[in-house]
Amino acid sequence: MAIKKLYGTLDSLDTLRALASIFEHELDLEFIPINLDTGEHKTDYFLSLSPFGHVPVYQDDELTLFESRAAMRFISHCYAKPEKEQVYVVPKLQGIASSWIDIEDYHLSGPSAKLREELVEKPKKGRLTDKEVVAEEEAKLGKLLDVYEERLTNCKYLGGDKFTSADLTHLPHLHHLMRTPVKRLFEERPKVSAWCRTILARPAWTKVVDMVEKNKV
Amino acid sequence: MAIKKLYGTLDSLDTLRALASIFEHELDLEFIPINLDTGEHKTDYFLSLSPFGHVPVYQDDELTLFESRAAMRFISHCYAKPEKEQVYVVPKLQGIASSWIDIEDYHLSGPSAKLREELVEKPKKGRLTDKEVVAEEEAKLGKLLDVYEERLTNCKYLGGDKFTSADLTHLPHLHHLMRTPVKRLFEERPKVSAWCRTILARPAWTKVVDMVEKNKV
Repeated sequence: MAIKKLYGTLDSLDTLRALASIFEHELDLEFIPINLDTGEHKTDYFLSLSPFGHVPVYQDDELTLFESRAAMRFISHCYAKPEKEQVYVVPKLQGIASSWIDIEDYHLSGPSAKLREELVEKPKKGRLTDKEVVAEEEAKLGKLLDVYEERLTNCKYLGGDKFTSADLTHLPHLHHLMRTPVKRLFEERPKVSAWCRTILARPAWTKVVDMVEKNKV
Repeated sequence: MAIKKLYGTLDSLDTLRALASIFEHELDLEFIPINLDTGEHKTDYFLSLSPFGHVPVYQDDELTLFESRAAMRFISHCYAKPEKEQVYVVPKLQGIASSWIDIEDYHLSGPSAKLREELVEKPKKGRLTDKEVVAEEEAKLGKLLDVYEERLTNCKYLGGDKFTSADLTHLPHLHHLMRTPVKRLFEERPKVSAWCRTILARPAWTKVVDMVEKNKV
């Protein structure tokens, strides 16, 4: 099978999502780092791959995809193993998984990004955390996680009884949030907490985390 | 085939997206209007269908989906005719369609909503249009439509040579924008303009528009 290419940066949660999907499906990967600080994403070449200049870009033979969730959907459609997720075989499973992919996108990613900014990025730059913003976003996240808790009371994973893209798409946000005081919101909810532990321990995700850690050295 | 249920409101672009998908696939529909003004979306019953209280909700036998794009993806997966879109048969087509579904979501829907607010909703309420916001959002939309123009120079539809969900997902926004002065941004770009005319003329979309118009009387 031809090697796949991923252009991106390990600081980008969208890049981590695509990496998780690639490793989950055991594809051979060439990772091409794109330096946003030096404007590599604004070069003519990069813009020819990604018209909005966003990372990541996934290349698979002649196919170029420039949205992380589209790359994830393509990979899990094209390379799913029969014993694994059946999302693109059974329309009902696809519909359910799609709902949860959208929930992560519309409801989780906003509070998660704001909390990360307040609790991680601002202190790193010597700026003060805005406690009001934190309280507001924590309240939103808490309500959201109540919906997850109910869902995960009925099935082991968000998409049903198997790990699917619906879970995978959450990994970059969960990884970062679990390293902040917000972790307690997950731990207070037993089903959510067990689900987080299970999916964050997947070998494919561990491989992504190793890549991120090595990059920091 | 059992009748499908859609709970929603004809003022909601997300509801119109789901309706377009239902009519495009010629499904029998029971439409159940949800009155947001009287808080019908906050009743226990509605929240049991849609945990965030959002419309629309699509019901198909025992499956309940509460995100319009997830409903659209399910419908086009489950009820696609062989001569029509092959998105869920060919992973590459699915990846490409998914990219354009995401582009509508991330890049078009924001400027479209703001322009609609300034150019339609505010005047309706006797409030002044903020010309600066209009100029800013028009500039964003113009740049975006340049990307569409290039794409549509290479193929008739966004997803390739056939009409797919990648086009369908745009219909509610296009419908509204084409009734504002912003229409000129579409008309200035020949491929975009031809694409808009073609997809807005589809019988399924005409049926949605008829429903909206009758509702106003």
